[in-house]
Amino acid sequence: MPDTLDPSDVEQLVRSRPGWSLSDDGRSVSAELTFSSFADAWGFMSEIAIEADKLDHHPEWSNVYNRVAITLTTHDASGLTVRDVALAKRIASALARRGYGEE
Amino acid sequence: MPDTLDPSDVEQLVRSRPGWSLSDDGRSVSAELTFSSFADAWGFMSEIAIEADKLDHHPEWSNVYNRVAITLTTHDASGLTVRDVALAKRIASALARRGYGEE
Amino acid sequence: MPDTLDPSDVEQLVRSRPGWSLSDDGRSVSAELTFSSFADAWGFMSEIAIEADKLDHHPEWSNVYNRVAITLTTHDASGLTVRDVALAKRIASALARRGYGEE
Amino acid sequence: MPDTLDPSDVEQLVRSRPGWSLSDDGRSVSAELTFSSFADAWGFMSEIAIEADKLDHHPEWSNVYNRVAITLTTHDASGLTVRDVALAKRIASALARRGYGEE
Repeated sequence: MPDTLDPSDVEQLVRSRPGWSLSDDGRSVSAELTFSSFADAWGFMSEIAIEADKLDHHPEWSNVYNRVAITLTTHDASGLTVRDVALAKRIASALARRGYGEE
Repeated sequence: MPDTLDPSDVEQLVRSRPGWSLSDDGRSVSAELTFSSFADAWGFMSEIAIEADKLDHHPEWSNVYNRVAITLTTHDASGLTVRDVALAKRIASALARRGYGEE
Repeated sequence: MPDTLDPSDVEQLVRSRPGWSLSDDGRSVSAELTFSSFADAWGFMSEIAIEADKLDHHPEWSNVYNRVAITLTTHDASGLTVRDVALAKRIASALARRGYGEE
Repeated sequence: MPDTLDPSDVEQLVRSRPGWSLSDDGRSVSAELTFSSFADAWGFMSEIAIEADKLDHHPEWSNVYNRVAITLTTHDASGLTVRDVALAKRIASALARRGYGEE
């Protein structure tokens, strides 16, 4: 099981696309995304579903129409780890490719 | 916009597969499903995603690994309508085809 | 059943993103797409799958790793119709959003 | 790179669900599947897409409406290998769970 992240790595994660919010207990980050349509949102989720299962690290996520909320945490470590960073990078890449999340 | 369901129709919906729980305010039903794997859960969600968009009626749903939680409601009617019954039927069919939800 | 397209509409379809090739018999158009990864290709296909079923007009398509080949035709009309134009527009939009197919 | 399969292992693969056809050159197997709807077919493909990318071994497959054609081969070995057996097992499991392919 990987160690939890150092504060500087957490800060870097929070600052990365799409702009993650750190939970009060510091053990997870969350983001809310809005897409142009349900089909657009579902294409994004389908891409990340494949990446997540390949990483063997799955998001906690919900969807209503064109909106997707994602929470990342590593349950076995009771906090954020390199696994969350890896999945966050895939999410950032999928959003960037679609032109979303530009600052 | 369709009317909200009669109590007898709500009761029938609640009793249908996969066993829906009526919310306290009577305006929505929810179910929690467990699948054999993330891929199995995702296959189910991908099938329902297509049916939902075709019905133009989308679930509120969340996923963590092999678990899927679904809430059905018709926001524009502030309650349950025939649209929720239609989507519930697609969900029941997809579960039955996979052998899930048998009582 | 819609009529087959006028030659000028076929020409417009062929010129649209992603650059369709008209078959020798003029009854279908095809395109071959390459994505950055299998997950990227699958996200695209998942988005189009939803749009296609909603239009009730499905592509003939194949996939190997990061490559997707698509053929559009309207079988019932033995040729290209407004249905193919509608699906082609969804495909163009999904590719444009990802920055693919720019000329 | 894994060795190609022994003839007895190829025979076992061909006999497994869903009933694979060996190509004339013995380097690949193919199957044609029919589902109850496009959404049903897409749910199956979405499940296998996740399994395939996790195995890092992808099918050659095509889809038209409710039909899916799949070819398995290991290009780097110019023939059938344990990778194809692994993916075939996932396909058999996904079909069995849906009650398809029973003999």
